Amino acid sequence: MIPIEEIRETLVALHETPGIGRITIDRLLAISALDGARTRREGDWRELGLTAKQAAAAVENLGEARMEARRRRWARTGLSYVTALDAAYPARLRHIADAPWVLYYYGRLELAARPSVAIVGTRLATAYGRRVAEDLASDCARAGLTVVSGLAKGIDAAAHLGALQGPGSTVAVLGSPADTPYPPENRTLYRQIAEAGLIVSETPPDIPLHPGLFPLRNRIIAGLALGVVVVEAAERSGALITADLAGSYDRDVFVVPGPVTSPRSRGPLLRLRQNSAKPVLDASDILSEYPAYLNGGETAAERADSDRELTPEEARVYRILRDGPRSVDELSAEAGLTFGLLHAVLLSLQIKRKIHQQPGSVYNAL
Amino acid sequence: MIPIEEIRETLVALHETPGIGRITIDRLLAISALDGARTRREGDWRELGLTAKQAAAAVENLGEARMEARRRRWARTGLSYVTALDAAYPARLRHIADAPWVLYYYGRLELAARPSVAIVGTRLATAYGRRVAEDLASDCARAGLTVVSGLAKGIDAAAHLGALQGPGSTVAVLGSPADTPYPPENRTLYRQIAEAGLIVSETPPDIPLHPGLFPLRNRIIAGLALGVVVVEAAERSGALITADLAGSYDRDVFVVPGPVTSPRSRGPLLRLRQNSAKPVLDASDILSEYPAYLNGGETAAERADSDRELTPEEARVYRILRDGPRSVDELSAEAGLTFGLLHAVLLSLQIKRKIHQQPGSVYNAL
Repeated sequence: MIPIEEIRETLVALHETPGIGRITIDRLLAISALDGARTRREGDWRELGLTAKQAAAAVENLGEARMEARRRRWARTGLSYVTALDAAYPARLRHIADAPWVLYYYGRLELAARPSVAIVGTRLATAYGRRVAEDLASDCARAGLTVVSGLAKGIDAAAHLGALQGPGSTVAVLGSPADTPYPPENRTLYRQIAEAGLIVSETPPDIPLHPGLFPLRNRIIAGLALGVVVVEAAERSGALITADLAGSYDRDVFVVPGPVTSPRSRGPLLRLRQNSAKPVLDASDILSEYPAYLNGGETAAERADSDRELTPEEARVYRILRDGPRSVDELSAEAGLTFGLLHAVLLSLQIKRKIHQQPGSVYNAL
Repeated sequence: MIPIEEIRETLVALHETPGIGRITIDRLLAISALDGARTRREGDWRELGLTAKQAAAAVENLGEARMEARRRRWARTGLSYVTALDAAYPARLRHIADAPWVLYYYGRLELAARPSVAIVGTRLATAYGRRVAEDLASDCARAGLTVVSGLAKGIDAAAHLGALQGPGSTVAVLGSPADTPYPPENRTLYRQIAEAGLIVSETPPDIPLHPGLFPLRNRIIAGLALGVVVVEAAERSGALITADLAGSYDRDVFVVPGPVTSPRSRGPLLRLRQNSAKPVLDASDILSEYPAYLNGGETAAERADSDRELTPEEARVYRILRDGPRSVDELSAEAGLTFGLLHAVLLSLQIKRKIHQQPGSVYNAL
């Protein structure tokens, strides 16, 4: 096991430790306190600034029994995770002040790094709102944008449905754990997204549902997307909070106008009145903001983004593997790298979740 | 007959002369060519720059037979007129570049000088649009604004109807002559407005209806109002032309959002997309732009506007008459003016349409 994997497991264990939150983890990382965490006793943790309660919980959660239980969990649930220490962690989300340390997911994690818009709104949507949400999502996904939403009833569900029609596909950010379909009405949609898109949640599995999880989810929706579109929302509404968060993250905020007589259009219209959002008459109002990202799939702009994360050697190997799987011998010959350097490059690409090692030392691009 | 009355009659005659338009009249006035116009022959007119055709038409239309026919017309139709030379001419309308020289009217001309908003839109309105137009007009009129519109079917009719519920009342600007109710569907509404509000038109009586009259009407609607509200309008629509004119006159442009799926809301929404109009969620979005004019009836700001047109002596006499009718003797005593000065002041106030002379030399304020 490489050290980075140990650090990742430690990070997940701390993330799942009751009483230890994002800010405590920030502080521990700042003093490099994740190294050697597993052998640390309560007194050691307290010296590092944890309370007695936090220290006891950390020791228990970092014990081998719990670590082993988590490893069995991945096998049992098929759930994956990505940490903020990983290259595969969604880059835009990393830039928000309160980015989650760990995301659990099913499906195509690369969708979270793609150019995306969030389409959100009230659970109590009108037929008008659902229709517009589905049409906008379909048009955005067909144009190549990924559609992020919250898998709630109403507008969110309509947005996911629309997006599943296009290649841009869709990311559902759950307040519940990623392995817990919620709400039950959207169980079928959940399965479709797990297969064709991405289900993601900050909430560890086995955490019971509680209302406080859903506001936290909103910041991830806003953080993942280039912009947030509010289709329908009452005057006080989670969707407007998501929009305000997007504004605070310097992302675009869009609203869909509707009848001034409709309470469900009140939220979007109030944002127009304040001049704090762009009106969306059709998908062109969204797409025109992101010309570099359009025309389906990975564009030049996106490739440039993703290549920036790689060293020249890593990029060379990665480009070869995108043509098809290769053995270490084939790679060494094609890339013109020594075995020593090649192994370092392959390890780094695995950590960056760019490639995958198959049995028999054959590698393929992800 | 005082000279100003002769000038006014001449101006109306020229305004009604086929082939003589607003710009020709501008030029004639610039060279003071209205004095002595009635005794002028064709050659005289041609020397002043008129074409042969215009000259012949002017001589005919200024002849005593025609002048007398017009005087009989006022008596027969009950129609009044106001010219741009008169103090009673609506002040805001005077400020537009292509202000009409003559307006024919039934009803309370003072409404045209009051603070007002135009509420306009498509003839093919939806139930949503008609409801919003009526509610906005009612709220604006109750708050003290006069509502200007075009007496068309659909949004215009709903706006007039709503306004008739409030003290601000309503001005209908017709493309047809003021004594010709058009369209026939709105005949009852026309009668209500002639009684409680103001019917106004630039088109001389006896002119047959033609489509070109209606676009000309739009500039008067825009010119009378502090701002124009477009409730529903297709992408190409007279209501949007009125809004654009209002913008060019430096008046406010407001639009009512509606469903993005409604072709009737397309015009308003396009203006929002261009950021060239303020969205109206309810009447407060309009009223908040005109705080000085609110709370019903004539406000301090309005009185200041109207008093600015009067000399100190005129204002003194006018204030006395607003308390109740007075004879010349009573006025002379109360105002402390000599009979000579008082007569000049009374004449001027009559020309400015501030007061009216009753039989027996008793005067009352209008």
